[in-house]
Amino acid sequence: MQAVNIANKFSQFTEQWQPKRIATVNDYDVRIAKIEGEFVWHSHEDTDEMFLVVKGSMKILLRDGEVSLNEGEVYVVPRGVEHKPVADRECQILLIEPTDVVNTGTAGGERTATVETL
Amino acid sequence: MQAVNIANKFSQFTEQWQPKRIATVNDYDVRIAKIEGEFVWHSHEDTDEMFLVVKGSMKILLRDGEVSLNEGEVYVVPRGVEHKPVADRECQILLIEPTDVVNTGTAGGERTATVETL
Repeated sequence: MQAVNIANKFSQFTEQWQPKRIATVNDYDVRIAKIEGEFVWHSHEDTDEMFLVVKGSMKILLRDGEVSLNEGEVYVVPRGVEHKPVADRECQILLIEPTDVVNTGTAGGERTATVETL
Repeated sequence: MQAVNIANKFSQFTEQWQPKRIATVNDYDVRIAKIEGEFVWHSHEDTDEMFLVVKGSMKILLRDGEVSLNEGEVYVVPRGVEHKPVADRECQILLIEPTDVVNTGTAGGERTATVETL
């Protein structure tokens, strides 16, 4: 019975845009990821998606605006809403979403990643 | 469209053991609470409960051990498992759990709180 140290988990990988599962809550994942640059426009038709910035800063571009997130800030992208995460410099984020969520949503493509458990 | 700043939300209240909803993800709440001292032994029969320490440190006592959590650490109490959160000094925590979860679980009693949206 031991707590999960988020910083320690981040120290265990370097790849970007590859979410890692660090815990589960019922059928939801707690995922972490390192991101830098631009991701693809996509949406998740069946679920909201929570972003929490652990370190650094990022933006979530939406078709009708954008949301800036700094360390310690949360934003929930509503289900069905197209979004594009971007980060000028490497940013560490924590995500809460159902375990079956694919990172690229309905867009698919080469950035689609398998979520490993860390 | 604006991010939720967790520190800012914590600055808006002083009461302890009174979870506040700062966001929702589908039918799950993102709650924050200030805790100090000992809570009651309780369990949630139908759901896991995620604890993340935002500031300070706490312990989660279990019938067969205990888990220490420092800042930036996560622990998920499995459904049905009796637990008792304690904190020597005031600690700020973030919780992820279904919106219908009552803080005292099946134990009930005077520490049962209504979850306000902040």
